[in-house]
Amino acid sequence: MLPPGDQELLDAVLAAPGERQRRAVAKAITLLESTRADHRQRADAFLTELAEPARPAFRIGVSGVPGVGKSTFIETLGLQLIGTGERVAVLAVDPSSSVSGGSILGDKTRMERLSVDAAAFVRPSPSSGTLGGVATATREAIRVVEAAGYGVVVVETVGVGQSEAAVAAMTDVFVLLQLPNAGDDLQAIKKGVMELADLVVVNKADLDADAAARAVGQIQSALHLVAGRAGDAWTPKVMATSALVADQVAAVWQVVATFRAAQEANGAFAERRRGQSRAWLWERIDNGLRHSFRAHPQVRAQLAETLAAVEAGRLPVSVAARRLLASAGVDAARIAD
Amino acid sequence: MLPPGDQELLDAVLAAPGERQRRAVAKAITLLESTRADHRQRADAFLTELAEPARPAFRIGVSGVPGVGKSTFIETLGLQLIGTGERVAVLAVDPSSSVSGGSILGDKTRMERLSVDAAAFVRPSPSSGTLGGVATATREAIRVVEAAGYGVVVVETVGVGQSEAAVAAMTDVFVLLQLPNAGDDLQAIKKGVMELADLVVVNKADLDADAAARAVGQIQSALHLVAGRAGDAWTPKVMATSALVADQVAAVWQVVATFRAAQEANGAFAERRRGQSRAWLWERIDNGLRHSFRAHPQVRAQLAETLAAVEAGRLPVSVAARRLLASAGVDAARIAD
Repeated sequence: MLPPGDQELLDAVLAAPGERQRRAVAKAITLLESTRADHRQRADAFLTELAEPARPAFRIGVSGVPGVGKSTFIETLGLQLIGTGERVAVLAVDPSSSVSGGSILGDKTRMERLSVDAAAFVRPSPSSGTLGGVATATREAIRVVEAAGYGVVVVETVGVGQSEAAVAAMTDVFVLLQLPNAGDDLQAIKKGVMELADLVVVNKADLDADAAARAVGQIQSALHLVAGRAGDAWTPKVMATSALVADQVAAVWQVVATFRAAQEANGAFAERRRGQSRAWLWERIDNGLRHSFRAHPQVRAQLAETLAAVEAGRLPVSVAARRLLASAGVDAARIAD
Repeated sequence: MLPPGDQELLDAVLAAPGERQRRAVAKAITLLESTRADHRQRADAFLTELAEPARPAFRIGVSGVPGVGKSTFIETLGLQLIGTGERVAVLAVDPSSSVSGGSILGDKTRMERLSVDAAAFVRPSPSSGTLGGVATATREAIRVVEAAGYGVVVVETVGVGQSEAAVAAMTDVFVLLQLPNAGDDLQAIKKGVMELADLVVVNKADLDADAAARAVGQIQSALHLVAGRAGDAWTPKVMATSALVADQVAAVWQVVATFRAAQEANGAFAERRRGQSRAWLWERIDNGLRHSFRAHPQVRAQLAETLAAVEAGRLPVSVAARRLLASAGVDAARIAD
């Protein structure tokens, strides 16, 4: 099915762990990140040939504002998991990388010990396109590293914009790191990120244990205001930690493991994944419909004038919508809303 | 352009105020609420012929949980405005009316004094279809009452579901009524309604002035957590009132008038309306695209199997989306997100 070069790449991704596999995983992800039409076709074929991994991987989302200590936390956690025989992939969704050319999450020089470990794969955020494009590329990268046998996939993001919602929608557990200071907590509530968290970790507790304890209390209070996304089955946990202390990071992982076990036992784990797949499919389809509509020659020819007439109140919105839809060949006469 | 009967209806809507006009307005809105295909075509033609009113009307959204006193507040306010020579229309968006057949907002027997006043037009919520359908019908009803010369349009809704966002998106000012009790305030924050409010009124302050004062303070604190939708130009106000006391309702209107004057002076009033029109146009178009796609025979034939393959992990989402889009004749090969 695949052209010979891509078949070779696929074989290398599915081969035994080692430097050849690691290079193949990186190359495959680069192909998936490309927006060139011919690359997209090759990428589709490649993705279709990737089987589901024999053992489902566990996907953990980690977010927090710059300076909260995400890299230290992920590196400590990753090395601990590798110490138990696990293989760990770290991917990133950083919307800033496409806007500024620079990246808030930094480049490959982060997590120096983890990124050179043979059992780890660390990849910076794709830097092409919108958040939607970055998120799509990362979702597809998850498939590649899972097919390559990485048992834990950490998806890191940063507390700006909508990237947290995108990462929560592609992971099994979402961990929010917070600084021990009330101002940040209020910020997080404001942006609705708390609703996404299964676990909130107040990091850098070593700097000021009292402040960290106060922050834990404040966040617990704030969480009463929001409905956790896991529903009644799980009340989001809040704990203080220092990513510099191995035992404390291990304690965080223990809570994550408890969450995973509970979700698997009651079926919520599988249902969340199914729901994520359904939602992502419709999101991709709706995006495709929107792009295609806006690119339609008749729509492009009429849009500016129609928008102006609508804004000036000369043309009712419902009429304008039906006219534009009809010009693109969509019969919307029977569409009630 | 219009068939003779509809032209007569239009003439009556645009005629001088009186019982004939009032009946015509009601009949025109009934036509707009219909989802029958032939009625939709007549409605489109009718809407297109409706000119913008000579004097722009002012649109005020009012929301609050059942029992907060919305009807009393609106009736008192409406009669006061009529006393100053204004004509007032009251429309409603009540999503419960289509689900249960009953309506949380009640039927025409509410606002007994206002609804029989010659300078008022009171219309219950359309009861057909989804929230989207109800909101669309109400937006179009606004055009009719404004063309008929009503200078103030009150759009009432109830604190359930997403109806508040829909009403905020079709009005110039959004007033949230609250009961003087902290539990309700927390509820409102939780549901994100506070972000929509330009003015929060703690009603029924006559029952317990101390509780009302406390509620004002709590809500003011809560508002610090959310960004008001009017941006830096207006900090959402909080005040206690009793809808039974005319002077207090007049004081609320004074704040609303101040808001309107400030928004008009800095251009935010017109920009909000333009933005609402643009957003509504794209919402209608996107809904049309979604409906049309889901109704496509090829999509209907393939959807169940494709969804099952995606949920089981046998088919990557990106591939599934492109296949379904292609089956509906949409070329999405170049769609990056």
